[in-house]
Amino acid sequence: MRTTPNVSVDVVLLSLHQGKLQVALHRRARGPFQDCLALPGGYVHVDKDGSIEATAYRVLKQKTGLQPRYLEQLRTFAGPQRDPRGWSVAISHVALMPYEELRQAGDEVFHFHDVDGLPDLAFDHAEQIREAVRRVCNKASYSTLPCWLLPELFTLTQLQRTYEQIFGETVSRSTFRSRLGIKVAEAHPGESADQADILLATDQFQGGSQRPARLFRVNQLSLFKRACW
Amino acid sequence: MRTTPNVSVDVVLLSLHQGKLQVALHRRARGPFQDCLALPGGYVHVDKDGSIEATAYRVLKQKTGLQPRYLEQLRTFAGPQRDPRGWSVAISHVALMPYEELRQAGDEVFHFHDVDGLPDLAFDHAEQIREAVRRVCNKASYSTLPCWLLPELFTLTQLQRTYEQIFGETVSRSTFRSRLGIKVAEAHPGESADQADILLATDQFQGGSQRPARLFRVNQLSLFKRACW
Repeated sequence: MRTTPNVSVDVVLLSLHQGKLQVALHRRARGPFQDCLALPGGYVHVDKDGSIEATAYRVLKQKTGLQPRYLEQLRTFAGPQRDPRGWSVAISHVALMPYEELRQAGDEVFHFHDVDGLPDLAFDHAEQIREAVRRVCNKASYSTLPCWLLPELFTLTQLQRTYEQIFGETVSRSTFRSRLGIKVAEAHPGESADQADILLATDQFQGGSQRPARLFRVNQLSLFKRACW
Repeated sequence: MRTTPNVSVDVVLLSLHQGKLQVALHRRARGPFQDCLALPGGYVHVDKDGSIEATAYRVLKQKTGLQPRYLEQLRTFAGPQRDPRGWSVAISHVALMPYEELRQAGDEVFHFHDVDGLPDLAFDHAEQIREAVRRVCNKASYSTLPCWLLPELFTLTQLQRTYEQIFGETVSRSTFRSRLGIKVAEAHPGESADQADILLATDQFQGGSQRPARLFRVNQLSLFKRACW
């Protein structure tokens, strides 16, 4: 009998398409949970993985061909019941990618499913997805996390739509910008120190000749609202 | 060569004493890191642990004799470098206990140290403690988490001192109560539905005959402030 648990990494890879958060799932070819939909996941390889994030990136690359720019640890799901093969530890991660980059990968095996109304999934993957969606919504309320669902350069209107789709709520342009602490809507590059903390204005524009919209990039995973104490 | 990582649980057990957050540490009798201060921790026992929380409680009971009422998973620290014995996974937890209950346990081996100014610790335990303290401070800003640092029944003044010590900031009585959404300072049991969500007033009092203070208990781990979106 094994005396140490199996250790794997699962990744909840989320994207935003047609106004809905979607998650990457594949159909398991082998048991346990044969033919069930499941998250990409795999065992830690102690001979080659330099870190747990390296395991997550290796598994994603092997199973989906995708390399998301944003990945963080979610929580570890562990116990004797979650896998019929015995005591197991799944270090769950959440990753975000723009839908445009998924299409470029031209993946054949993984498909993206709306996170609402999923069928039965393998293992505790449904619970992992629920927790990942909660994490993204919570972090979106005080950080630039949703930027990772957009291409590297985006307009403020695209960013607003992304926040609105995550929260299921529309807001006015001015409300949105004040919540993000964006004081100068059409700021020139480097103009505002406040703004530079969150978004960096580029000198590129999108759109036609009438009202081209400035493109921004995220500076870093910024917290734009401190805890209210 | 092992093909699967060692899996252990570490617990950052915090208490509040003399206005400072303190952490339970013991001096390691054996290598690696012999004679270094370290968190209580131990391997998962696949033959007897029914869950990862059960592992954490078993380890704490064996190593410290303590059974905190509040325990949650913090994050998993994993990789080939953190333990000289090889690739390892430490599922870190944070636990909170009132200092009064620690003294009752009469522990001889574990001692509590201020989280500021710790000496070098074994493994990545210093990082685990920093992250646990951040987690407690963050959660304190929007939840009743600090109640777990108090006895089961407490006065509102005791609760205010606890929040103030965590944040290193004093506030007026009225500011504190409005931040917690406590609208009726000396509420009778069951008087306010708002209040019942967070704290339950008991019919017990503390103090002398002049101005006895009503005792409260926490209803649950309540969120008293929603994200600001």
